[in-house]
Amino acid sequence: MNICIVGVGLIGGSLAITLKENKFATNVIGVDASQENLDKAIRRRLIDEDLPLDDGIRKADLIVLSTPVDVMLHLLPEVLDKIGEHQVVIDVGSTKGRLLDSVATHPMRHRFVSTHPMAGTEYSGPEAAIPNLFDYKFTVFCEAEKSDPTALELVKSMYASIPMQMAFLDAKEHDVHTAYISHISHISSFALALTVLEKEKDEERIFELASSGFSSTVRLAKSSAEMWIPIFRQNRDNVLDVLDEHINQLSRFRSLLIKNDFDTFHQLIKEANTIKRMLS
Amino acid sequence: MNICIVGVGLIGGSLAITLKENKFATNVIGVDASQENLDKAIRRRLIDEDLPLDDGIRKADLIVLSTPVDVMLHLLPEVLDKIGEHQVVIDVGSTKGRLLDSVATHPMRHRFVSTHPMAGTEYSGPEAAIPNLFDYKFTVFCEAEKSDPTALELVKSMYASIPMQMAFLDAKEHDVHTAYISHISHISSFALALTVLEKEKDEERIFELASSGFSSTVRLAKSSAEMWIPIFRQNRDNVLDVLDEHINQLSRFRSLLIKNDFDTFHQLIKEANTIKRMLS
Repeated sequence: MNICIVGVGLIGGSLAITLKENKFATNVIGVDASQENLDKAIRRRLIDEDLPLDDGIRKADLIVLSTPVDVMLHLLPEVLDKIGEHQVVIDVGSTKGRLLDSVATHPMRHRFVSTHPMAGTEYSGPEAAIPNLFDYKFTVFCEAEKSDPTALELVKSMYASIPMQMAFLDAKEHDVHTAYISHISHISSFALALTVLEKEKDEERIFELASSGFSSTVRLAKSSAEMWIPIFRQNRDNVLDVLDEHINQLSRFRSLLIKNDFDTFHQLIKEANTIKRMLS
Repeated sequence: MNICIVGVGLIGGSLAITLKENKFATNVIGVDASQENLDKAIRRRLIDEDLPLDDGIRKADLIVLSTPVDVMLHLLPEVLDKIGEHQVVIDVGSTKGRLLDSVATHPMRHRFVSTHPMAGTEYSGPEAAIPNLFDYKFTVFCEAEKSDPTALELVKSMYASIPMQMAFLDAKEHDVHTAYISHISHISSFALALTVLEKEKDEERIFELASSGFSSTVRLAKSSAEMWIPIFRQNRDNVLDVLDEHINQLSRFRSLLIKNDFDTFHQLIKEANTIKRMLS
């Protein structure tokens, strides 16, 4: 199978190398706005060849869009304009509502399958791509009922080959869920990094003492603005709701400290501890 | 050397097994309020024997206090009452101001060395103890000038044997630093866990989709209330200062989302990204 990956970064590049190694793809074509990224991807053997968008589409059975989500909004309709009935397009973006609205009435909507493989790291670009990034994680399919059964089956078999688990949500549910279990974590880490960096201006030695707990909490603060600003923009309303709740929770801890109410604080920690059952 | 570890949990147990394995300790005595903990520690070979406090002190060259920091406040003066000039006591607690004040005029203050090995995990108890937890991390010594040179040298040689790096701060500086690089991370994780758990009441499937980024940000929410409440209580004023700053940073992100000011948001992410140079 010829697979064309449009956007050869962390996600696109990792998918490319994983599908090549497991032989789901016989040939991987890379398309990217940056020739430097394509050269890196060739050098790292993430892709077999690089082509301009139109040539890549023409040659591919399956086209994977893995650009930042703002680019996706105009790229997806453009790609759907250019494909035939034998081809399938998927996106792997982190926000779904606006993207799916934008192609709701497109004549080739049925050859498009919207997916979100829930995996990533705080790094970006082809140099961050790694095989096995997605192993045994979940992929969310959105509005799968609007895709042709043949297109859907192909994409399911692709994710099964990795292997990934699959879940099915509508776009609205997806965007609420990801605000809670991914987008807010990033804002929290960015804010924590800024809190400590602000302090560090006076206290140079603060970081040499930082514990592994601190590193873990703040590691997402290394994430790319180019990837995340479009996500926050598209999922703004949900992110605002979750951020309000998170600030409320922190303000509750603040009040308890002010009132020296450590009994209630203790209870809240016990409650927070129940997150154990959700985490590996 | 006979070492008596009072409080055989994550930190005390990890220190016990590390010092036994590197042969700095010839015999490790465990003392703990919980006989169950002592039995576990014997079974896991963290300690060679368990004894009541007074017997443990009498037999030891070096006594390590590794209890929650509230227990430490009355335990340290009691232990100092019972030692002789040939013995050394250290604490490994996460807060220093109140503890050091409490023994400032004790006649055996000079045989006490206050240290904070900056390492840990979100787990607790003897079952969480692991060798090499401390390797190459920093230990902070507080008010080292108030300890006898011979006592200080012994403790330095102990930490060097692990090996750990060493830093020297006064108690006040220590408590401000740890509020920034450890205590706030825990409050942030507890609050994030509560934010998401609140939502999960309606949405059962939310967690099966949680990404590794979420897990990393929230993992400290598994931490023990018994350990952390006394820390927050003793370091309340510093923790409140940092928490206020953290809430301010989050509120700034909130305002930018409300105003759709994604240019400033982008700049702040770029600024947060500079945390890279501080993290491994």
